[in-house]
Amino acid sequence: MKQQVKKTHWKSKLHDIIYEADTPAGKWFDIILILVIIVSIILVMLESVEGFDNKYHNLLNISEWIITILFSLEYIARIISIKKPSNYVFSFYGIIDFLATIPMYLSLFFIGTQALIALRALRLLRVFRILKLTRYLGASVNLISALKASRIKISVFLFSVLVITIILGTVMYLIEGPQNGFTSIPHSMYWAIVTLTTVGYGDLAPHTPFGQFIASLVMILGYGIIAVPTGIVTSEMTKQDTKIHSNTQSCSNCSFDKHMDNAAFCHKCGEKLNHE
Amino acid sequence: MKQQVKKTHWKSKLHDIIYEADTPAGKWFDIILILVIIVSIILVMLESVEGFDNKYHNLLNISEWIITILFSLEYIARIISIKKPSNYVFSFYGIIDFLATIPMYLSLFFIGTQALIALRALRLLRVFRILKLTRYLGASVNLISALKASRIKISVFLFSVLVITIILGTVMYLIEGPQNGFTSIPHSMYWAIVTLTTVGYGDLAPHTPFGQFIASLVMILGYGIIAVPTGIVTSEMTKQDTKIHSNTQSCSNCSFDKHMDNAAFCHKCGEKLNHE
Amino acid sequence: MKQQVKKTHWKSKLHDIIYEADTPAGKWFDIILILVIIVSIILVMLESVEGFDNKYHNLLNISEWIITILFSLEYIARIISIKKPSNYVFSFYGIIDFLATIPMYLSLFFIGTQALIALRALRLLRVFRILKLTRYLGASVNLISALKASRIKISVFLFSVLVITIILGTVMYLIEGPQNGFTSIPHSMYWAIVTLTTVGYGDLAPHTPFGQFIASLVMILGYGIIAVPTGIVTSEMTKQDTKIHSNTQSCSNCSFDKHMDNAAFCHKCGEKLNHE
Amino acid sequence: MKQQVKKTHWKSKLHDIIYEADTPAGKWFDIILILVIIVSIILVMLESVEGFDNKYHNLLNISEWIITILFSLEYIARIISIKKPSNYVFSFYGIIDFLATIPMYLSLFFIGTQALIALRALRLLRVFRILKLTRYLGASVNLISALKASRIKISVFLFSVLVITIILGTVMYLIEGPQNGFTSIPHSMYWAIVTLTTVGYGDLAPHTPFGQFIASLVMILGYGIIAVPTGIVTSEMTKQDTKIHSNTQSCSNCSFDKHMDNAAFCHKCGEKLNHE
Repeated sequence: MKQQVKKTHWKSKLHDIIYEADTPAGKWFDIILILVIIVSIILVMLESVEGFDNKYHNLLNISEWIITILFSLEYIARIISIKKPSNYVFSFYGIIDFLATIPMYLSLFFIGTQALIALRALRLLRVFRILKLTRYLGASVNLISALKASRIKISVFLFSVLVITIILGTVMYLIEGPQNGFTSIPHSMYWAIVTLTTVGYGDLAPHTPFGQFIASLVMILGYGIIAVPTGIVTSEMTKQDTKIHSNTQSCSNCSFDKHMDNAAFCHKCGEKLNHE
Repeated sequence: MKQQVKKTHWKSKLHDIIYEADTPAGKWFDIILILVIIVSIILVMLESVEGFDNKYHNLLNISEWIITILFSLEYIARIISIKKPSNYVFSFYGIIDFLATIPMYLSLFFIGTQALIALRALRLLRVFRILKLTRYLGASVNLISALKASRIKISVFLFSVLVITIILGTVMYLIEGPQNGFTSIPHSMYWAIVTLTTVGYGDLAPHTPFGQFIASLVMILGYGIIAVPTGIVTSEMTKQDTKIHSNTQSCSNCSFDKHMDNAAFCHKCGEKLNHE
Repeated sequence: MKQQVKKTHWKSKLHDIIYEADTPAGKWFDIILILVIIVSIILVMLESVEGFDNKYHNLLNISEWIITILFSLEYIARIISIKKPSNYVFSFYGIIDFLATIPMYLSLFFIGTQALIALRALRLLRVFRILKLTRYLGASVNLISALKASRIKISVFLFSVLVITIILGTVMYLIEGPQNGFTSIPHSMYWAIVTLTTVGYGDLAPHTPFGQFIASLVMILGYGIIAVPTGIVTSEMTKQDTKIHSNTQSCSNCSFDKHMDNAAFCHKCGEKLNHE
Repeated sequence: MKQQVKKTHWKSKLHDIIYEADTPAGKWFDIILILVIIVSIILVMLESVEGFDNKYHNLLNISEWIITILFSLEYIARIISIKKPSNYVFSFYGIIDFLATIPMYLSLFFIGTQALIALRALRLLRVFRILKLTRYLGASVNLISALKASRIKISVFLFSVLVITIILGTVMYLIEGPQNGFTSIPHSMYWAIVTLTTVGYGDLAPHTPFGQFIASLVMILGYGIIAVPTGIVTSEMTKQDTKIHSNTQSCSNCSFDKHMDNAAFCHKCGEKLNHE
């Protein structure tokens, strides 16, 4: 039985290290983990640089395996130390961790599984977990809640952009035609998005005067509608800010309830306020 | 006479299915309609992809006719089931529906009527009718009323941009000249818009040092004036938000219901307000 | 003496037609003037289109002279009908009108005076005079006062952009060098502005990995600082809106002075308000 | 001892001229300094223009030395006239001044020290010191404090952009591959930044239909996230404006002076306020 307790104790300690970020050991674990993740991402990048890969192919391969083994150990440790492993395995981070770990194993059996390696970058999101307890929280909560609150408006906006893109793509396909590079409607829609978003690669540009006239209208339209997401997010963010900095205590005498944060007396009737 | 009643009943039922979206049958009709519209748009897109069209020309042609017949039936049903057909025929959606239906019929007699097929994308706007009764309404009303309220400011802004474009186009035509691709003033104006809106295809770019200097000024100007539509829409949207969140208590005397949050007396009749 | 009165009367009537926009005759004069200005600008544009100029050279030349004579007559009429001609001649519009009229006369003696014709576009600004008395006034006043109020902030911003441009231009010239198209520091500065403003023609793009890294930083920087003019103008515009919609009447009983525009009673103490 | 006093006096006078900007002599010193800095920057630019350098190499070289000597004298004067030279030498401006002065001396011994000359542009920041006492102060303080206040949000935002860039870079590398110009992941990340920031050079653009589809999503994403920094800065700037325009009446009892505009009683001590 003592054995049992000890084992549980050991598991619980491991849990603290891996899942908690506010103990010294947990902090160190997280910092090392982030460094390993960054190294793993840099490895993936270097591998893709042809000259570099040719020179150091073996070194990169070995490092890749070391990273994979480290990730595997971490993944197993996470499963062991948690009470309900399924809670972790099927969580957002659990799935990312799994997908970031397996490509090397799969590469033994299949070709072209490298694509999954891209998912390693998603592991970087763990940084947000480490920052969880710091002042960065407020900022990201604010950002995310502003984006969430404007979710519906943004959907309406994106749908409108899609309809505009389809119409513009068809119109430009008919005006410019395949001889000017607008080989199909989907290709013209690609042009419409490139233009509306003011990216403007120039790989596809109108050549006929009428096409250029329509394109000018599209650009000015894009100029106008770039204001819409900005307007949505800004007004939402201003609102979020107000919420956070507002104070809801009400005066016991006159019930006025919009006081400044540092108010000690009601500025309407002079009554003393009870600080919350 | 019974016959008459039955016929009216049948018509009224059809009307409910086609024009209403809050009955189960009406909902299904709308969903199927949207799916047919999406299929029709995908068909138009696929037709424009050369390789695909060559391979499946007959299949596409038949599908096109099926869509056209479905649209025709829907158009006729809409006319039959409404009391005053002219109300539908000359409405925004009525005209779009008509123009989206006829291209295939016209193609029997004329060549080059494919252009009208682009209008099918406009039928997608029907989606907004289906979403009419959901929470998306508030968001789109908000968006549209913000854009409507800033209508005049945006007109002044667009007119100023037009004047700037004419001046810049003429100036760049004189500086760079046809030898650098600025073949005419309208073409230079196209360049000015491409630059002001920060699209920057690069199909037309200044080559002389002085032209590049002027272009730099234009870009910084464009940088500055991109702030104007954003400012307009954002400030309008912030206002809209405020309106929606305005106080809804109504005066017990005169029933006026748009009071400021800190109002103690109705500002219309002087009656004391009951704070909620 | 009667002659004198009649002459004055005739002059005063001419003055009303030319300078006033709220009499029927004045309105018609302004509308015709704007139309002539638009025709004159279209003429300048058509002249610059080579194919068109070759075909209709004589027609264009004659039209140009007709426009010039009309402008001359208008210019003389403006001088005659005003009491102090210098008030008009040296005003903003007076100078533009003069410069828009003389190019054809100068072209008899000099070559290359066509450049001045570009100034005709400036005459379009007269449109704002005609709209003077309409609801467009509020919108443009709002726009202009917002821009004026943010004048200093925008200067600070533009100066910072200039310093950043010089530094970036020098750095990229040193990194990329003439072999990659960055032939001189001014040319590199042109690149820096093209990149910072997110125009991105692509006529000049970094080719070395390090140059591309620096360019990436520049773009993200540009992404960030595009927020600054937008922020300035938006916050200013929000303020302007508040000002215009605010009401400054104060209650005679409690002196509260922030009432809604349609307030008839003070919402603080219930006292009747005197509408201004 | 008199000598000592005189020397001190001379030093103190020099200090006033060099370090103070509100005495006439100090003002003149600053204006001349800025002019010399501007001339020095123009020199560096001209030197980089090949044709110009070939023609006037000697003239440029001599001017460069004159500027260097002037800067050296100023640097020495600054060290002499200050009580604690280390306060200046290791300050921000001290380091810039040093680095802007030495390149010519170093060029006698080393090759390729021209890079440091780019730092001369940083000396332009001195302009802000001269404007220190003017109305430009408020504007820049406002700008800087708005940026400072949004520091954390901007960090969160930039980090998110970095993660997105890595993921997109990897995905596009896998989709498009080296045959379409996406030669490595870092190179693809460069493309991702060029696209996300809507710069769009076009030196690297997707060629496969699927790549263009992903690119379209990226552009719309970029369109959306351009709203985030704008929203952050705008809401912060609006807040700053509010702060600056806050009510300045001070309480007669406790002298607290940041009351709300409609405050009737001091919210700190409950004293009745005198409305201005």
